[in-house]
Amino acid sequence: MKVKEIMDMNFVVVSADQTIDDVSIRMEEKKRFTTPVVDDDEKLVGWITSLDVTRGFREHKKKVKDIMHSKSDIVTVHEDDPARLAVLEASKHKVVSIPVLNEVEVVVGVVRTFDIVETLSRLYEIKVYKIFKAMEQELRGVSWDELMEASAIVTRRRTGDRVTAEEYEQRIKNSTFGEAIWATGGLEKFFVGFIAIGELVIARKVARARK
Amino acid sequence: MKVKEIMDMNFVVVSADQTIDDVSIRMEEKKRFTTPVVDDDEKLVGWITSLDVTRGFREHKKKVKDIMHSKSDIVTVHEDDPARLAVLEASKHKVVSIPVLNEVEVVVGVVRTFDIVETLSRLYEIKVYKIFKAMEQELRGVSWDELMEASAIVTRRRTGDRVTAEEYEQRIKNSTFGEAIWATGGLEKFFVGFIAIGELVIARKVARARK
Repeated sequence: MKVKEIMDMNFVVVSADQTIDDVSIRMEEKKRFTTPVVDDDEKLVGWITSLDVTRGFREHKKKVKDIMHSKSDIVTVHEDDPARLAVLEASKHKVVSIPVLNEVEVVVGVVRTFDIVETLSRLYEIKVYKIFKAMEQELRGVSWDELMEASAIVTRRRTGDRVTAEEYEQRIKNSTFGEAIWATGGLEKFFVGFIAIGELVIARKVARARK
Repeated sequence: MKVKEIMDMNFVVVSADQTIDDVSIRMEEKKRFTTPVVDDDEKLVGWITSLDVTRGFREHKKKVKDIMHSKSDIVTVHEDDPARLAVLEASKHKVVSIPVLNEVEVVVGVVRTFDIVETLSRLYEIKVYKIFKAMEQELRGVSWDELMEASAIVTRRRTGDRVTAEEYEQRIKNSTFGEAIWATGGLEKFFVGFIAIGELVIARKVARARK
C-alpha cells in the first residue's frame, strides 16, 4: 500500500500572504488542525497548525508567513512512498498529520493520524474465522471439522480451557485478529498457537494418507 | 491491552471559567490540540479543540464555557476498556483524541491518535524473522535449515521468484510483519503462505519419522 492510498485529498492549503483570520475560518470549516503553506506553483513552503494560529491571534500577528514553520522544520513523505513510512514518521515525530508531495514537490495530500488508525484498524478487525477459512482452503484434504477439533485440542492443552470444537468455532466467528492478538499475548504467541494447530491437522492428514 | 496503558497522562485540563487566552498558552506550550474541561471534582463537563479556540479569538469570546462542546457531544472511553475500543472510536469518529474516564467519571488521561499509531505500528515492526524463530521452537524436530529450505520452495512455487534458502533467511531478517503483509497482499495471504511452509516441513518431518 502506498501513501497516496491513505492520504486525505480534501485538505486545506493556504499561501504565506493570506491573513490568519481567513485561514482560521477555512481550517475550522474543514476541521483541519494543520495545513500546508504553498507558493504559486503549489509547492510546499511551510506548515501551520491551529496552535500556531492561536498564538498568532494572541500575539496580534496578521499573516500566515508570520506564524508558519518553514519547510525544513517539518516531516514530509512522497505519494509513492510505502504507507508504512508515513506510519513510522507519524509515530516517531508525534505529529497529527504529514504533507504528501509528488515528484515535483507539489503538495498532493495530507496523511492524518486518524487515516492511519483507520487503515491499521481495518487489519485488526479481520475476523479470526477468515484466517481459519484461508487455512482450510490451503490445507487440501483437511476438513473444517478436523480443523476445529484440532484447535480445541490445542487450546485445551495450552490454556486448560475445556473448550469444545463447536465452542471454538463460535469463538472465532465472533473474535477479530486484534482481539486474538491481545488475548494470546502478542503476535508471536498467536502464530505459535496457529502453527500448533497446523501441525496437529497435518500430522493426522499425513498419517491417514499412509494407512 | 487496556486504554490506560496507551493513554497520555501529561494532558492539559482546564475549567469552564478560565479565559481562552490562558488556555491557548497552555495548549501551545504542551502542544495539545484538544483538552478536557472539568469541574471542581475533576469530572468531565466538556471538551475544546484548538479550532474552538481560534473561533473564540475571532469572535471575541472570553471564556472556555463560551466555546466548549458539552460532554454529551463527545466520545469518551474508560481506563479499563480494551485499547482496541479507543482505536475503533478514534477511527469511527475521526477525532484526534479521546478523553479517558475512571469509574467515577474523573478524567485520568487522553488517548491521542498518534499514541494509537505508535502502539499499532510497534506490532507492525516485529521482524518476520522472530515469527519464524517462534515457529522453529514450536515445531520440535524441524531444523532452522529445513524451515528456510521449505520457505524458499514455497516462495518459488507461489511467486516464481527464484530465491534460495540463504536469500530467504536474509530477506526475513530485514523485513517486518508490516512489510510482509503489504508485500503478500494482506493478512490472510500472509497466513496462507505461512501455513504452506508449515505443511511442507511437517509433512517432511512425519515422513522422516516413519522411515
